[in-house]
Amino acid sequence: MSNVADYIDYNKEHFKSELFDFLRIPSISTDSEYKNDVKDAANYIHNKLSSLDLDRTEIFETDGNPIVYGELTTDESQPTVLVYGHYDVQPPDPLDLWDTPPFEPTVRDGDIYARGASDDKGQSFTHVKALEAYQQTDTDFPVNIKFIFEGEEEIGSPHLVPFIEEHKDLLECDMVLISDTAMFAEDTPSITYGLRGLAYMEIHVQGPNRDLHSGVYGGAVDNPANVLTEIIAQLKDDDGVIQIDGFYDDVIELTEEEREAYKKLPFDKEEYKENLGLNGLRGEKGYNTLERTSARPTLDVNGLWSGYQGEGAKTVLPAKAGAKVSMRLVPDQDPKKIAKLFKKQVESLAPDTVTVEVEEHHGGHPAITDLSFYGLQAAADAFEAIYDKEPFFTREGGSIPIVADFQKVLGAQSILMGFGLNSDAIHSPNEKFALKDFYRGIHTSAKFFELLPEHTS
Amino acid sequence: MSNVADYIDYNKEHFKSELFDFLRIPSISTDSEYKNDVKDAANYIHNKLSSLDLDRTEIFETDGNPIVYGELTTDESQPTVLVYGHYDVQPPDPLDLWDTPPFEPTVRDGDIYARGASDDKGQSFTHVKALEAYQQTDTDFPVNIKFIFEGEEEIGSPHLVPFIEEHKDLLECDMVLISDTAMFAEDTPSITYGLRGLAYMEIHVQGPNRDLHSGVYGGAVDNPANVLTEIIAQLKDDDGVIQIDGFYDDVIELTEEEREAYKKLPFDKEEYKENLGLNGLRGEKGYNTLERTSARPTLDVNGLWSGYQGEGAKTVLPAKAGAKVSMRLVPDQDPKKIAKLFKKQVESLAPDTVTVEVEEHHGGHPAITDLSFYGLQAAADAFEAIYDKEPFFTREGGSIPIVADFQKVLGAQSILMGFGLNSDAIHSPNEKFALKDFYRGIHTSAKFFELLPEHTS
Repeated sequence: MSNVADYIDYNKEHFKSELFDFLRIPSISTDSEYKNDVKDAANYIHNKLSSLDLDRTEIFETDGNPIVYGELTTDESQPTVLVYGHYDVQPPDPLDLWDTPPFEPTVRDGDIYARGASDDKGQSFTHVKALEAYQQTDTDFPVNIKFIFEGEEEIGSPHLVPFIEEHKDLLECDMVLISDTAMFAEDTPSITYGLRGLAYMEIHVQGPNRDLHSGVYGGAVDNPANVLTEIIAQLKDDDGVIQIDGFYDDVIELTEEEREAYKKLPFDKEEYKENLGLNGLRGEKGYNTLERTSARPTLDVNGLWSGYQGEGAKTVLPAKAGAKVSMRLVPDQDPKKIAKLFKKQVESLAPDTVTVEVEEHHGGHPAITDLSFYGLQAAADAFEAIYDKEPFFTREGGSIPIVADFQKVLGAQSILMGFGLNSDAIHSPNEKFALKDFYRGIHTSAKFFELLPEHTS
Repeated sequence: MSNVADYIDYNKEHFKSELFDFLRIPSISTDSEYKNDVKDAANYIHNKLSSLDLDRTEIFETDGNPIVYGELTTDESQPTVLVYGHYDVQPPDPLDLWDTPPFEPTVRDGDIYARGASDDKGQSFTHVKALEAYQQTDTDFPVNIKFIFEGEEEIGSPHLVPFIEEHKDLLECDMVLISDTAMFAEDTPSITYGLRGLAYMEIHVQGPNRDLHSGVYGGAVDNPANVLTEIIAQLKDDDGVIQIDGFYDDVIELTEEEREAYKKLPFDKEEYKENLGLNGLRGEKGYNTLERTSARPTLDVNGLWSGYQGEGAKTVLPAKAGAKVSMRLVPDQDPKKIAKLFKKQVESLAPDTVTVEVEEHHGGHPAITDLSFYGLQAAADAFEAIYDKEPFFTREGGSIPIVADFQKVLGAQSILMGFGLNSDAIHSPNEKFALKDFYRGIHTSAKFFELLPEHTS
């Protein structure tokens, strides 16, 4: 195995320059303007797979963005690992807050700054390079491997689930390997066994048929922006408890054991606040910060708009107002059911002086992986071998809806082998990924494939 | 006098083309990008005054936009009328809702469509043309006249008030004539004797020092957009009563007589709702629509913004949120005092998990003109002569802060001789001004100057 490790160490610059080419492609899936860039990113990762010695690679067209596939069977008796990643990225705005352009990757203080560096181009690329290390050093690859890269993760994978259902045999595997999460802290490897789900809604409030003069009509005509604030404010009480009828019905409460485990995690609340520039934190009463961000559901406004947003003062009574509101879900909340409850609640809060429409964006199921699963143990050993530290098993607040779908459709559990950090600012300006974790990620991936056979029995 | 009236009838096309040249200048005072256009508008109206036979015309530079002045003394024994108007306009956005470009005036169904057509270029231009009619027909002008046109009305006239204070003698007059209001209804002339004041505020809520991933941080980090909705929602109760401590302290309640007069005004609530495309109206409990829009104070959100406003879904926990909120005031509320109370209230509602800043934009005092003032009677007679209908005396919901300042500084009452309509959509897309009212306005102005001497005794 030393050859594999050596190859990885000798080829850092080459791995980096390849990743940079990948990061230069603005594959923003939520904005149709970037449709061609998304295709370019698909072709890029397909070319990388094709340059490996695989049994098969293919680009599957969908009604949305393409799905890139590759597979290599080495030994039927060994487990098959399905590596999942996504080549699409979040929008970079607000652009003016980036220190360097989001699609011109640059390294500062050992960090790669670029949209997608951590989420998910940089992290998912590690497994491709790990396989390359085996093949370039003529080292037998210990297991069977399949790759699937999608381009719609940031918009809820609308076409991946149907694809999986139609290609059950093609994707048959013993486990799914995903690197799209964060380590608990720097040099503190952790394996995420729980993820939150998501229900993402959009509210439109329509008042008068045109913008009005606030002097002429103000006082008699209900203001859609005021109404919107009234509706949203009523969705939570002062204790941070979400006020949607039935919202908590399917929430599995944390056990005492889980709450004890949370207490053992290294967490410095003051450092957390300082990093965010906050004087105080606020959340659901009765739970601590880590519980609130991973094991409890939330309701957050993601966007808000109405009337005049420009310089100075405009005395307008706006015709319409809108908001994007999303809820993070925990086992066993169902996104479709929550979306219905949200819609019902908002409509019940709407006065008849305006027209309120509630639209549902993508959602995702929460997921939990069985802690005794042998794949998780192999991943833990690989982390310990490379980082020289026993990883924590944690739950994360983010959502990877596809994890629940892999479990449902393929019956395969997922191993969330995260190399990122919560401070990577994914979905924010100045997203970054530590170079050393990019390289350690490739090492850890290679080590995982090496150790996996030992754990099969 | 028939010559004057004939001249006006014969020169309609020429009046119209001059007004169109005026309307083509995008003199948007609230947006510094248009600074030069604002100057162009000042020069345009100054050229029009210079083309008349006046004793003096001048452009006074200020720290802001220029003030255009002109004067003609005919007979010291006659009253002096100070005509006030503004050559600046509101921003035209949202641009996509205009049927024709806002600064390319066009006539449809007898209406001039353009930003500023009614507010205030079209209306204020009538008095300039009325004087021209006298002079071009060698008819003695019956009174003394002064003109003052400012370019900052839409941003609260920050430099006009100091200017008036510094030029008391120059501006000395017996009354101020302003055409910047609406008639009660089509072919229903009315004289506005009351105006609401204004306090215009901006709220900034700063949460974390950067946009965050709503999955990673959601639940523990207070969301500035949610906080903003909570704050704004608490500023009014379910009865539409404004919840700011001390807000109503100086409000003069309507007398029974006034409420009776309101009942006599022709008003069709169903037609009002239909025109606005509304199923219902909502306002302060215990008052009817006309009272709510003219004699009661209000609180309206004029603008709202936070996070992601683009296409699709972005799971961001925004770093900041903002709102523009304005309050219409009635006698004897003081804008400065109300602004202070608003700031205090909002700050008291802000949790310590975010930083809330409240900024004050321009404000204005409410105003009431004495109904027995002889100038008002002359105006009423002029309206009746031209429109063949006795005008209503009404209070308007809009604000012309300068009216209170003229009264305070010059001791002069204002005559609000409105030729517009509430349906003119001022401050909205597709602002319009009826051609026939532009012409009738010139006639009414000329008639007013003719009749004024009779009322002096």
